[in-house]
Amino acid sequence: MRQRPSLTPIIGALPTTVPFVGPEAQERERGRPFRARIGANESSFGPSPRVIARMESVARDQWMYCDPDNYELKVAAAAHHGVATENVVVGEGIDGLLGLVARMYVGAGDAVVTSLGAYPTFNFHIAGVGGRLVTVPYANDKEDLDGLLSKVASEKAPLVYLSNPDNPMGSWWEAPDVVRFIEALPETTMLVLDEAYGELGPASALPPIDVARPNVIRMRTFSKAYGLAGIRCGYAVAEAEVIRDFEKIRNHYGVSRMAQIAGLEALADQDYLRSVVARVAAGRERISSIARQNDLKPLPSATNFVTVDCRRDGAFALKVMQGLLSRDVFIRKPMAPRLDRCIRVSVGLDHELDIFAEELPGALAAARGNKPKQ
Amino acid sequence: MRQRPSLTPIIGALPTTVPFVGPEAQERERGRPFRARIGANESSFGPSPRVIARMESVARDQWMYCDPDNYELKVAAAAHHGVATENVVVGEGIDGLLGLVARMYVGAGDAVVTSLGAYPTFNFHIAGVGGRLVTVPYANDKEDLDGLLSKVASEKAPLVYLSNPDNPMGSWWEAPDVVRFIEALPETTMLVLDEAYGELGPASALPPIDVARPNVIRMRTFSKAYGLAGIRCGYAVAEAEVIRDFEKIRNHYGVSRMAQIAGLEALADQDYLRSVVARVAAGRERISSIARQNDLKPLPSATNFVTVDCRRDGAFALKVMQGLLSRDVFIRKPMAPRLDRCIRVSVGLDHELDIFAEELPGALAAARGNKPKQ
Repeated sequence: MRQRPSLTPIIGALPTTVPFVGPEAQERERGRPFRARIGANESSFGPSPRVIARMESVARDQWMYCDPDNYELKVAAAAHHGVATENVVVGEGIDGLLGLVARMYVGAGDAVVTSLGAYPTFNFHIAGVGGRLVTVPYANDKEDLDGLLSKVASEKAPLVYLSNPDNPMGSWWEAPDVVRFIEALPETTMLVLDEAYGELGPASALPPIDVARPNVIRMRTFSKAYGLAGIRCGYAVAEAEVIRDFEKIRNHYGVSRMAQIAGLEALADQDYLRSVVARVAAGRERISSIARQNDLKPLPSATNFVTVDCRRDGAFALKVMQGLLSRDVFIRKPMAPRLDRCIRVSVGLDHELDIFAEELPGALAAARGNKPKQ
Repeated sequence: MRQRPSLTPIIGALPTTVPFVGPEAQERERGRPFRARIGANESSFGPSPRVIARMESVARDQWMYCDPDNYELKVAAAAHHGVATENVVVGEGIDGLLGLVARMYVGAGDAVVTSLGAYPTFNFHIAGVGGRLVTVPYANDKEDLDGLLSKVASEKAPLVYLSNPDNPMGSWWEAPDVVRFIEALPETTMLVLDEAYGELGPASALPPIDVARPNVIRMRTFSKAYGLAGIRCGYAVAEAEVIRDFEKIRNHYGVSRMAQIAGLEALADQDYLRSVVARVAAGRERISSIARQNDLKPLPSATNFVTVDCRRDGAFALKVMQGLLSRDVFIRKPMAPRLDRCIRVSVGLDHELDIFAEELPGALAAARGNKPKQ
């Protein structure tokens, strides 16, 4: 019998099943496309027309490698946040940056604290370095700041994850609460503060950026409000030495030239961003209204989605989601205990929310009758 | 004094200086652009017009996340090589895939064998997992297959790197030699066979793909012959279980939607690829001719660059390169002992090679006079 190369013990112990199932995979399985793509918290409004025009104009230039420094984008992001260029690192989306953070701070067996039901990609990357996830349940549909602090202390965790505003519940903490959380952390614990939805909620939820503090990494993305999920580009803002540590292991040619150019143009068009934020707010109202008309309870949201309490158990909400999927409406739902009573609906274009409004009653009826249409 | 989060021992031991200096950084430092960009082995001929048109048409769709399965591109690449879809994984360029391979197979302190002066990004990723690089000098400007085999055996290396055709020398082994190398490897040693330049050399250099063998990973890219370095997309072909192992740790949303679409269209336009291969061959002849006219010795090349022996020592060749850079001609050079007597010139457009022809005599004269123009 043939031998084969051995994986490292950490990689060898990982499951081959991964949490990433895109709508495209679901469409392939179903054999037909969705009519409404309102499940991945993308921005159906798309990127700024200026960004689109710029991307079109540089398609032919993509024979050139990207600038491995991401220099121009880094300079622009730094100026946007009022920090120095040395305080910014650009990566292949927040996902890519989270993978680096895991490798930087987490050794095999180290405890890493996050909320139960929070971002699965973070968990995936922690598993990938052999970290030990310690989870804290949400409290009142918000990440439990005191619970997280308590676990960080008891587990001596080198790393803790907090998203604000939060996915999948859409909830948020106001800046003073986040600051209190940061100040209560041990100085030796690194906080990843995932602000993927930061542009979409109240400004009062975003603490001032303090790049003197060596144990906070703030993460932003072009995937949400900027409408550029497909380009795979995000950035982290942190103390300069922390940023230099990213340089040691990041894939220096990981962010595409197209992404660098698109991101730069997106940052420059803040008028468009404001228009999207207003349209997202209107869309949240619309989703909430549809939910209420169906006797469901929309939760407050500071993001581009609304999490809707279906007012029964997780099995029921699962049927509601399945009913919507079978009616060609792509949505997702939280899966953790207590959160799982909800479905999660992204703000889409008007015609997509029309379809959601049309199909929700049927999906609910089927779920209530215990006969979801498949 | 404030404490700070600790890096893991492996990351903490890494240098902050990294080997990635793009031409953009050089241009920023110089304060002016290069007139000829013929140093990074990009394809100045650009991508296929079909690819450009397709990229332009989908710019506005980039609000959607990429398909985390890279499904369509994977299917097309598999068909292109006559293997099953389960034998292909797509990544953020070969660079991204090399980073994953390092994590999969190399534990702290493990020996990894490569050629002295071969691809620095591979070395970077090995350092990033705490691997111990063991290098074998080139022999007659080719990677030394027997030397590599010998080091693999003596070091019990879990991983060995071979590029064919090779960068930075442009040399290659014929398929039977590569097959002999593969068959002589221990079954427990994984071979990364980097075929980034595979489309540009003689077909006789590419062994048949054998996906039953669990210890070979073949890597291909859209960065070279396909003229899409900026999109960051490559793929690996290997035995199905090896491919499944990549799934455990890869950044599933790492390859942009634009890259997926461009790569798919590029594979579909093999006529354009053939035309590029012919133009690259003509460009190699032109560079070789210019070199000979200047009493230099061009080496045979199976790539989109020509490595030119400057017929003196490394210090001299360095001055030649510096002279060309100061004359606004971006090239690079090998740095390892013995290889360092050479400069490396990528095939560019006719007007770029005209500039190279014009500036090389001055750069050589300055180098010979020990007074390089700076």
